[in-house]
Amino acid sequence: MQKTDYQLIIIGGGPAGLTAGLYAARARLKALLIEKGAAGGQVLTTDWVDNYPGFIEGISGFDLVGKFAAHADRFDLETRNGEIVSLDLADPVKTVHLESGESLTTQSVILCTGASPGKLGIPGEQEFSGRGVSYCATCDAPFYRNQEIAVVGGGNTAIEEALHLTKFADKVTIIHRRDELRATRIIQEKAFANDRINFVLDTTVQEIQGGTKGVEQLLLKHTDGSSSTLEVSGIFILIGVVPNNSILPKGELELDEWGFIRTDTEMATNLPGVFAAGDIRSKNARQIINAAGEGATAELSAEQFLSNLK
Amino acid sequence: MQKTDYQLIIIGGGPAGLTAGLYAARARLKALLIEKGAAGGQVLTTDWVDNYPGFIEGISGFDLVGKFAAHADRFDLETRNGEIVSLDLADPVKTVHLESGESLTTQSVILCTGASPGKLGIPGEQEFSGRGVSYCATCDAPFYRNQEIAVVGGGNTAIEEALHLTKFADKVTIIHRRDELRATRIIQEKAFANDRINFVLDTTVQEIQGGTKGVEQLLLKHTDGSSSTLEVSGIFILIGVVPNNSILPKGELELDEWGFIRTDTEMATNLPGVFAAGDIRSKNARQIINAAGEGATAELSAEQFLSNLK
Repeated sequence: MQKTDYQLIIIGGGPAGLTAGLYAARARLKALLIEKGAAGGQVLTTDWVDNYPGFIEGISGFDLVGKFAAHADRFDLETRNGEIVSLDLADPVKTVHLESGESLTTQSVILCTGASPGKLGIPGEQEFSGRGVSYCATCDAPFYRNQEIAVVGGGNTAIEEALHLTKFADKVTIIHRRDELRATRIIQEKAFANDRINFVLDTTVQEIQGGTKGVEQLLLKHTDGSSSTLEVSGIFILIGVVPNNSILPKGELELDEWGFIRTDTEMATNLPGVFAAGDIRSKNARQIINAAGEGATAELSAEQFLSNLK
Repeated sequence: MQKTDYQLIIIGGGPAGLTAGLYAARARLKALLIEKGAAGGQVLTTDWVDNYPGFIEGISGFDLVGKFAAHADRFDLETRNGEIVSLDLADPVKTVHLESGESLTTQSVILCTGASPGKLGIPGEQEFSGRGVSYCATCDAPFYRNQEIAVVGGGNTAIEEALHLTKFADKVTIIHRRDELRATRIIQEKAFANDRINFVLDTTVQEIQGGTKGVEQLLLKHTDGSSSTLEVSGIFILIGVVPNNSILPKGELELDEWGFIRTDTEMATNLPGVFAAGDIRSKNARQIINAAGEGATAELSAEQFLSNLK
């Protein structure tokens, strides 16, 4: 085996990457975690995490990810901040090219670059994020008990999550820019049959408005040119997630049609020595707990791969 | 859709089952978790958990699983204690048959029955079980204060437990059939540095011998063909796990060659509406964090399955 700078490089410092890092550090691998910004990934934008098992009363996303980072640090995981410009992953010696001009070589890689919520890009969206603007119904639904809320989107996730939200909210208005939903018929039928769900089709949200307590109303524009307002205390923007895949070698690495990385059940990609975990994977459920679990699985697969190298 | 008692029944109350239960309760499914004994699974027999992300300084297995159970309970997960005798999983309406004679119907099932310690299957093992033969260092270590004992195995669990046993026993001999340990490097290093631990590699135990007071000595066979005896008053057999699959419908459900349940990356088994998570799955890495992650993934897959039912 050719000499490399590292045995394992983990790319991304969200729950998947930090868990892989915790495991790698405990295994005494020569491992490095590279994160371009603050450690944490999408969790940082999650106001309150109520469903990470073990934190019975919930914990803020900020605090949870701080604990993940401190936990990996306790075992002396080497980390660095840096922007990656490209990756060579097909050969036995894999190379990570940094914006600084430096290149690092490694025998194995775990890709944990994550995903980002599709955004509307409208006024108020950023301002009220975490204060009425949410991108995750599973995470935040219970906060809207007996309230009136909106869901933006027309796909399976949006409609399923709208149905889910009716268990909590009194009234859920689904806002969709087209004249019909994209969701599977049976899911649509359930939504049509649910008297807590209203539909406002042919409509886009122009602006999210509110005050110190959070979201208060939405400015809507209809395709006939007219405008209106809708009073809600929450808006769930469920127009899909986009993979953070800009640095991935798309010709080499097998992706699904939306650009997420395909893996097997052990988190192996199509390239030997290259694994993926967390939201960048092609999968249905994007949760903190399964991102972390996949990070552990990926690291143990990487250890097994390394132990089989000459 | 035919009427059933539940939308989802979760079988097993370890980290996978309790996480699935936490998610199901938050999703307001009509869900039930059935556990035959105390909630917790194998975690209950784990002295100290240092790698469940978020608990920076580690936590006892007992306390961690207590938090999992309390977390699910906070969202009012319905649970019951009961021994299951058989399962009908092939039809749209699935049936759980309890020892009490009662049968419960459900639209979907998540199997989290876990795994149990592997046995050597040698003379004396059964005879001296509980009288010097143990499969759980956490449970039995205090009985061996100031005595000489053996640990069989070379993986993480075996070496970690051997380290734990040195807090009680004067001398711990690790017996492993190969010429090197399989455990993670950091754990190996700790064992090598501990002067109460001896290593006997390339060696198997042929027989466990003793008298009315319990275990007295082991007959060992070395790979060079020679034999020897080792005087000990206890032997901890820590050689891996076997699936808890006795209640599974083996003709219907696809298992791997060792009897673990095969799933896809979304935790779906070959049977529609039947999912699996945790140590009962066919997989390489059996960790608390990935069991929990799989529990969440399985529950969200079950939700999606249910939402597509007529």
